[in-house]
Amino acid sequence: MSLDNVLARIDADLDAATERLIALLRIPSISTDPAYKADCERAADWLVDDLQSLGVKAQKRPTPGHPMVVGHVEGDGPHLLFYGHYDVQPVDPVELWDRDPFDAALEDTGAGRVIRARGASDDKGQLMTFVEACRAWKAEHGALPCRITFFFEGEEESGSPSLVPFMRDNADELRSDIALICDTGLFESRVPAIITQLRGLLGEDFTITGPDRDLHSGMYGGIAMNPIRVLTRILAGLHDDNGAVTLPGFYDDVPELPDEIRDQWQGLNFDHARFLGDVGLKAAAGEQDRSPLEQIWSRPTCDVNGIWGGYTGDGFKTVLPSQASAKLSFRLVGQQDPDRIRKAFRSYLESNLPEGFSVTYRSEKGSPASQMSTGNPAFEKARKALSDEWPQPAAYAGCGGSIPIAGYFKDILGVDAMLIGFAKDDDQIHSPNEKYDLESFHKGIRSWARILDALTG
Amino acid sequence: MSLDNVLARIDADLDAATERLIALLRIPSISTDPAYKADCERAADWLVDDLQSLGVKAQKRPTPGHPMVVGHVEGDGPHLLFYGHYDVQPVDPVELWDRDPFDAALEDTGAGRVIRARGASDDKGQLMTFVEACRAWKAEHGALPCRITFFFEGEEESGSPSLVPFMRDNADELRSDIALICDTGLFESRVPAIITQLRGLLGEDFTITGPDRDLHSGMYGGIAMNPIRVLTRILAGLHDDNGAVTLPGFYDDVPELPDEIRDQWQGLNFDHARFLGDVGLKAAAGEQDRSPLEQIWSRPTCDVNGIWGGYTGDGFKTVLPSQASAKLSFRLVGQQDPDRIRKAFRSYLESNLPEGFSVTYRSEKGSPASQMSTGNPAFEKARKALSDEWPQPAAYAGCGGSIPIAGYFKDILGVDAMLIGFAKDDDQIHSPNEKYDLESFHKGIRSWARILDALTG
Repeated sequence: MSLDNVLARIDADLDAATERLIALLRIPSISTDPAYKADCERAADWLVDDLQSLGVKAQKRPTPGHPMVVGHVEGDGPHLLFYGHYDVQPVDPVELWDRDPFDAALEDTGAGRVIRARGASDDKGQLMTFVEACRAWKAEHGALPCRITFFFEGEEESGSPSLVPFMRDNADELRSDIALICDTGLFESRVPAIITQLRGLLGEDFTITGPDRDLHSGMYGGIAMNPIRVLTRILAGLHDDNGAVTLPGFYDDVPELPDEIRDQWQGLNFDHARFLGDVGLKAAAGEQDRSPLEQIWSRPTCDVNGIWGGYTGDGFKTVLPSQASAKLSFRLVGQQDPDRIRKAFRSYLESNLPEGFSVTYRSEKGSPASQMSTGNPAFEKARKALSDEWPQPAAYAGCGGSIPIAGYFKDILGVDAMLIGFAKDDDQIHSPNEKYDLESFHKGIRSWARILDALTG
Repeated sequence: MSLDNVLARIDADLDAATERLIALLRIPSISTDPAYKADCERAADWLVDDLQSLGVKAQKRPTPGHPMVVGHVEGDGPHLLFYGHYDVQPVDPVELWDRDPFDAALEDTGAGRVIRARGASDDKGQLMTFVEACRAWKAEHGALPCRITFFFEGEEESGSPSLVPFMRDNADELRSDIALICDTGLFESRVPAIITQLRGLLGEDFTITGPDRDLHSGMYGGIAMNPIRVLTRILAGLHDDNGAVTLPGFYDDVPELPDEIRDQWQGLNFDHARFLGDVGLKAAAGEQDRSPLEQIWSRPTCDVNGIWGGYTGDGFKTVLPSQASAKLSFRLVGQQDPDRIRKAFRSYLESNLPEGFSVTYRSEKGSPASQMSTGNPAFEKARKALSDEWPQPAAYAGCGGSIPIAGYFKDILGVDAMLIGFAKDDDQIHSPNEKYDLESFHKGIRSWARILDALTG
């Protein structure tokens, strides 16, 4: 049976596949920091070369930001598109890493072998699961099973500014029968999952200015309004005592969860005490009248991702600063409109500024939530294929993260997206010491081989 | 008349005196940052050399931190002690300076000539007014008018950790008839002032820890409590809507202002709209039922001097951070006890931490408020001498800043302290582009010559 041959080849080639991933991980392709622009180019070049070695017609395609990598192979049957991203998050606080974040290596841990590096899980390791499945397929069969388009982005961790224009400009080339996206995880690190709903994301980055210079708190303390005091009052007012967001109209377009989905999620037996305990937390912080999975998957949030102002160095400085700043993000669900939420936030903020204070915004684009079309038969085929590979049957799950690309495929290209990934909860993506389990990588490659077989069989 | 000769010599020597000050300002003696330790030593050495050139027996005296400079000249009449500090504040945000903060120079501005550099006003320029007055006196008379002790500190801007032990260990050597301190300003930049009350200071520097690692806000946003959210709620809760501090018992030891002092302050015709307008502010932020001068001079405050947490670099990172931190200071008045206030703050903070959160403190020592003994006849003599030098008669004023040394002279040595200084409100001490008016420097030197004459005549 030919699928078995492909799976056997994947097993035999695992060491070499791991070495290839490590080579890609050693390129520090941090997209949000301009200092790493050349490294993002290098990562794109590496992928073009690797795809070409599979007989894929691959090219680096320029954008106003970091380049896209697009590759095509012709074939019969369905036209599949595979999406991943080669850029990674910043590494700070770098002093909390146990090794250089870009000196990727295999490590043996009490819980098995892991590939340790920034991007190991998010998303270079996941991206390579699909590429390696194709490599094994091609080696075994001499050709890939169908027409496939590879589409790799380099700006996912910095808000994908070039993605929508690129998809619009190249819609005919990218339109396919289904888009496969590998940027999600196993449910509770053990149940293979197809993500059927994703939260949207809206970022706000702003600076409040009060006095026109830094002041001495001995001279002005008491009489001069402190911008940090203004900022903390504004941020503290964003949640009520029950954990709900206070912006007027914030919940207007938030649907109640259908009973069937609530039942299905209930069946997943989510252990929220373990989920929080694993990261040193004891109590849930979201709306207290919502179940933990609802809080993560289907309720909107507001979080401060960064705050700064005044003197933050060693020692003490009795300064009353001129400015205070914060970076905020909202996770959106249902029909919440990023522009409306932004407007509500800014109106709240500005109405709470003292007379004479001003605010400047560094805008971040927003994306609404996405709901997948599970009616497409590819979903059930993929679910069966995943269930064959893993010890537990695959589930349809929600995801609290924001992968706006899923919505773009539907909105711009009219293509359904299917999100399948193999990350684990403890992969520490976006954190120090990110890793990807060798098991995730190995069974991930095998999973894609099974899905390719199921979708083209 | 010999005082006239001294004053004439001061006028003639002004250019050379300015050059000497500029040389001292070029030494970046930032005491709070360990990177500048050698520069603090250099500044102390410079002062020892300069005092020795006046015939003063001066020495650098070691402490666990930066050295003291102590010098003595013998003489008849009263024993005067002069205190100043040779250390300076950090310079960040350095990009807001119009020149290198340590490339000191004279500049012509629309409002006259100024000496521009970090420390020009606070406190190297002020310290040198006294030294230069002594230089002119000595040049004219061949000797100083009385016994004088020079006492210069290098840790004033970082909380003076070595000061009290040094004063205790050397009490006999430092005990004098009166201590002259030059680290304050003219009232509203025009009225010479002797400061008769000072606020105390208490610093708190702390970090709140929630989750034991940075989290992805897509994965954990909603369910995981964000330490920045906790911090902003705690800080926002420190003031009520009226601007009063909410800590239980905070105002217990705050006396009401005596009517006579209120009347005297009223007579100063303080223009608080101009005071705030000069730094771009429109409304007063303190307790709304208190007069502006009360808010600055005789009411306690709480200000956040620094705040930081999460991602603060370029671009965006949807991180839910493990920690959030702040530096806070309280200005204290009356009999407020720094230790009691610290305890009240920590108790408030800790009672507002969610279950499982922790806090670590980096302690800063506190100092209570000071009240000067204006009954000492030296006060009236100095007030008359100042009134002879300046266009307006000198005033007894309060000061919102904290110069704990004044209290230490009284408590440790039993010596009354007299605070006289020539800084202006727009000197931008602790801020970018600090300056000292050449007029402050010149008339400051002349003022000390007059005061020396009045106290020893």
